[in-house]
Amino acid sequence: MPRFDVISQGEELLSGSTVDTNAGWICHELAEIGLEPGRVTVVGDVFDDIRDVIGEAARRVTVVICTGGLGPTSDDLTSEAAAAAFDQVTVSNPEALAQVEERYRARKREMPPANRKQAVLPVGATVLVNHLGTAPGFRMEEGGTVLFFLPGVPFEMKAMVKEHVIPELRARFVLPPRRTVVLRCMGIAESVAAQKMEGFERPGVLVGYRANMPEVHVKLHLAAGIEAEPLIAEVRARLGDVIFGVDTGSLAEVVGGHLRARGETIATAESCTAGRIAAALGAVPGASDYLLGGAVVYSNAEKVRQCGVDPDILEEFGAVSEPVARALAEGIRARVGATWGLGVTGIAGPGGGSPEKPIGTVHFALAGPTGTLHRKVHLPFERERVLLFTVGAALDLLRREVEGST
Amino acid sequence: MPRFDVISQGEELLSGSTVDTNAGWICHELAEIGLEPGRVTVVGDVFDDIRDVIGEAARRVTVVICTGGLGPTSDDLTSEAAAAAFDQVTVSNPEALAQVEERYRARKREMPPANRKQAVLPVGATVLVNHLGTAPGFRMEEGGTVLFFLPGVPFEMKAMVKEHVIPELRARFVLPPRRTVVLRCMGIAESVAAQKMEGFERPGVLVGYRANMPEVHVKLHLAAGIEAEPLIAEVRARLGDVIFGVDTGSLAEVVGGHLRARGETIATAESCTAGRIAAALGAVPGASDYLLGGAVVYSNAEKVRQCGVDPDILEEFGAVSEPVARALAEGIRARVGATWGLGVTGIAGPGGGSPEKPIGTVHFALAGPTGTLHRKVHLPFERERVLLFTVGAALDLLRREVEGST
Repeated sequence: MPRFDVISQGEELLSGSTVDTNAGWICHELAEIGLEPGRVTVVGDVFDDIRDVIGEAARRVTVVICTGGLGPTSDDLTSEAAAAAFDQVTVSNPEALAQVEERYRARKREMPPANRKQAVLPVGATVLVNHLGTAPGFRMEEGGTVLFFLPGVPFEMKAMVKEHVIPELRARFVLPPRRTVVLRCMGIAESVAAQKMEGFERPGVLVGYRANMPEVHVKLHLAAGIEAEPLIAEVRARLGDVIFGVDTGSLAEVVGGHLRARGETIATAESCTAGRIAAALGAVPGASDYLLGGAVVYSNAEKVRQCGVDPDILEEFGAVSEPVARALAEGIRARVGATWGLGVTGIAGPGGGSPEKPIGTVHFALAGPTGTLHRKVHLPFERERVLLFTVGAALDLLRREVEGST
Repeated sequence: MPRFDVISQGEELLSGSTVDTNAGWICHELAEIGLEPGRVTVVGDVFDDIRDVIGEAARRVTVVICTGGLGPTSDDLTSEAAAAAFDQVTVSNPEALAQVEERYRARKREMPPANRKQAVLPVGATVLVNHLGTAPGFRMEEGGTVLFFLPGVPFEMKAMVKEHVIPELRARFVLPPRRTVVLRCMGIAESVAAQKMEGFERPGVLVGYRANMPEVHVKLHLAAGIEAEPLIAEVRARLGDVIFGVDTGSLAEVVGGHLRARGETIATAESCTAGRIAAALGAVPGASDYLLGGAVVYSNAEKVRQCGVDPDILEEFGAVSEPVARALAEGIRARVGATWGLGVTGIAGPGGGSPEKPIGTVHFALAGPTGTLHRKVHLPFERERVLLFTVGAALDLLRREVEGST
């Protein structure tokens, strides 16, 4: 198997102010198509370091993916360093310059002179189109090693790996044909999933796991000729209905697809999540087919005003309680006139916890055509993770109701 | 300045199933005391790779911190690899063995035989006590370089860095104090910021940039004895009021702090962002001091129902227009009774664009005690980035209104 190295360039990665998630993603994608990871190296903004790391990697492995350092500022040194690693020079690449200029023209903006620097590439480098940002990528070949240089902005980098890197590597190397099936789960920990999958592996079937919070993905890597369907059925028997999709998009996309297929609509009433559930639904293109609107009801007064929650209930049970969650869901459903109303109220922390209602206590309710469901969960995490998992759990409650008869 | 390398060992880091947060933390801690970060290398469970990475680092820098691979299982190879890197052998270290045994005794458990492996260290290594786990750490000195080997479990590693590594490094090197000032900006591209900062660097003052979308951070790295205040004033003169904070938290935190200080409140009415602005405000601990609530008004019917937008205005100007943005802001402000009402309507794409209103067209309005401001922007990006920058621009409009007289 050909080996690859990943180089992440950027002072902010080395200083610890940004966590490098690019390298892990790249390792995962390239391992998926059959390449073997060698090393990941993170290097800062020191020219000699970048040059040395690139040169050493090229001598060690056959594929090098380098991200970052392609911006227009003086600390963006990757292009010069890549040239120096192979005793070459850089030159303004007309194709790259045309791309940078076109990007500004399309946005009807003047290109700052600094951005001309983004088109200065090692002599002989091939330009890689970046459809999502100003920094063109490039590739080089040196002594049997192919090197890809991509921007550090994650979604730009990911699109370019998919468009440029994966197809070239697939064409270049004879990689054992294999297929990966991704079973997306909500409401199970990675370690619990792994425990339930124990002993599942067999010749031609490898199992991988990935925590993609709040989702967990279980992956079956299948060698050529292995049939997927019976294996998927077997995984379903082990993991049950925490699986919300097989080779699908995110939970919000899956739920949205079900709603669209059923011609149904949704409205939300959110306290602790403050709009995050609606925003997750609204992040999916075409969400206006089923997302009508919602209420952010952070204050008790807004719970009363926007959803008609009875002030006596708030007084008696407190804002984080089953009756309030039900009233939120039923109130927003009736007022918006949606098929489904989703109500959420909880304590995200760090303040606000008590022995009876510790931080992480969240009440959900889903009001629908045949009544209202309630769920209570305890998410023993810090604020950001409580909110993240609350969104997942809320969408999953909806998913379980709408997926059956789609 | 003495340079250090960090080595993170573990197949789960290389496969992308776990994000390496240890290395960034170590870099930050050691940079704080004045050491200069060299490289971070992530390496898997291949013996030769681990041995090579350790040996190469020791030849390159004067301090090496290696985490992971000290456990009792067959894929824990760090001790053997560290010995091999310097042509040494390992031996069962009585002091380390006593520690592992003591750890089990204290928990009143039988020590599994496999754990004896954790006391097998390179000959001549010094044991480092781990008070929080079974794996002892160790240190070696080779050719003027000191190497620390620590467990990969973050809280064990962190405690040992503080107990063993930092004190030794402080005693060993005369470290110059230095300071980094972070100026947070909204509404300026990284390249434009860099252009305006051209020629700012001087002896003892380095400038760095970081795009932390939608924010841009300009960093001043100051050597000992350099006064920060005059430099900050000079950067303000160059960049102007795009700077929303110096050494502060995120824009949502800064805006929230201003609102709290003024005793004011905010309500939102969001179309395209579908709750994301309210969620950004609500992600900050203590947001209930100023965030009352808001409306997600994805459908036109909800714009009318929740904010009282005149249907004739929707008909005449369309949902994405100045009059609708104003009506949203004024309507939500009046209904919630907040000091400020923020209204947003735009076209995030990929559908819905037209020649007059291309994708990325967003109208903002901010209604307050003395009237309503309107802004129109064009964000020529794909959906996710349009939404991200819309949140930034909306919060920044609010920030400019509330920061003056806090």
